[in-house]
Amino acid sequence: MKIEYDGTDFLGWQLQAEGRTVQGAVEQAVQKALGIQMRVPVHASGRTDTGVHAVGQVAHFDTDISRPPITLVDALNHWLPDDVSILAATRVSSSFHSRFSASRKLYRYRILRSSVPHPLRERFTHRVYEDLHPSPMQLCAQRIIGTHNFASFTSSGSSVQSTVRCIHLSEWRERGDELHYFVESNGFTYNMVRALVGTMIEAGRANLSPTDMERIILARDRRYGGPTVSPKGLMLMHVEYDYDLTWD
Amino acid sequence: MKIEYDGTDFLGWQLQAEGRTVQGAVEQAVQKALGIQMRVPVHASGRTDTGVHAVGQVAHFDTDISRPPITLVDALNHWLPDDVSILAATRVSSSFHSRFSASRKLYRYRILRSSVPHPLRERFTHRVYEDLHPSPMQLCAQRIIGTHNFASFTSSGSSVQSTVRCIHLSEWRERGDELHYFVESNGFTYNMVRALVGTMIEAGRANLSPTDMERIILARDRRYGGPTVSPKGLMLMHVEYDYDLTWD
Repeated sequence: MKIEYDGTDFLGWQLQAEGRTVQGAVEQAVQKALGIQMRVPVHASGRTDTGVHAVGQVAHFDTDISRPPITLVDALNHWLPDDVSILAATRVSSSFHSRFSASRKLYRYRILRSSVPHPLRERFTHRVYEDLHPSPMQLCAQRIIGTHNFASFTSSGSSVQSTVRCIHLSEWRERGDELHYFVESNGFTYNMVRALVGTMIEAGRANLSPTDMERIILARDRRYGGPTVSPKGLMLMHVEYDYDLTWD
Repeated sequence: MKIEYDGTDFLGWQLQAEGRTVQGAVEQAVQKALGIQMRVPVHASGRTDTGVHAVGQVAHFDTDISRPPITLVDALNHWLPDDVSILAATRVSSSFHSRFSASRKLYRYRILRSSVPHPLRERFTHRVYEDLHPSPMQLCAQRIIGTHNFASFTSSGSSVQSTVRCIHLSEWRERGDELHYFVESNGFTYNMVRALVGTMIEAGRANLSPTDMERIILARDRRYGGPTVSPKGLMLMHVEYDYDLTWD
């Protein structure tokens, strides 16, 4: 399934003991749509944190019940709340796994440069009061392309051992009063995009130079990186698979 | 003041005995920002209904307290909730009135053509499951340009006598999977834009022809027009004044 959600009112993707989660909502809809009593575990390409959005999350589940994917999409959306939607579905072979078959993920982070709030974009942008200079931010973004150790941009609390990742795309694009950061990688460590953006904002404020960025990467210590910015600007855009996914 | 708001969680602009209204939120912020106990009535260019949004609402208030507009903007936004924002403010002469000096208003209505919901656009679009044909809708839109009696598109419950309005702009623009209707007039009767859109959607479904549109206009009877569509697709974009408004 390809899934879109407004993460504002969710405690992230992953099922929690208490509170709304996207996984919880999707699993309930799958149960209702298939008309079964047992929990059907739904596996996503990766967890998204509290408040993070998605337009291209991918998730799968296993079932013996045969249903045309298109009628399943309608049935699932019938049971889902307004802030989650199944955009498409397709049958996959049992060798496919939403997480383990994923080869790359693309995230976007939206910054609004404005001295006044913009309620219509409040849920999806992180606002920075002062003007940011995009060129030092762009230079910082370019420095992380390739394979690096992202320990300086990894929050503790992650169970993942290695913090080495390979970045395929890392760039800022100006969109009127907004700055959008696009980053594509074979994977992201915990809070990595938000820590990278928090660091690059400091470059945009001229508090940090692109050579400082180099130094921060090499430090491999979270205390050297900038602050973790708000989740609301972050969106999972696309998940790339080696598997040939064609949506019905 | 130029005001932006997400109308989803408001009972419209106008103060009500119970419930959240944009006017209520702005009046409270004005009181707090000016540090006074008495209510300060805030007058808008016009009321927007429950659920209708704005990026260019204009409103004014009278006060003896002298404050630079820029510091007032910051103070007001400090007191306003996340779903309303003062974008700009300026001093006006006592001859200016947000409603009576307004010469034209521009509204936009967003339709999402999609068989699946899109949570990220849920608050700001009206979704139509089936595909709509834009060309008959465009022909209908063109028919209303100029001065006409809009009784067939005016909901009862309006206190306004005349239903004659002059339309300067009326057109549909395709934006990917969305259709946006732009309409500019010297004024709008009660629910007029939403009734016009509801009627034109029927043309997009081939249930109604552009000549039927002519017939509906001439009938001057609400029963001939199409249904009033959801407020959530509607946004007040801009208010034009004869008065020279330059925002500080």
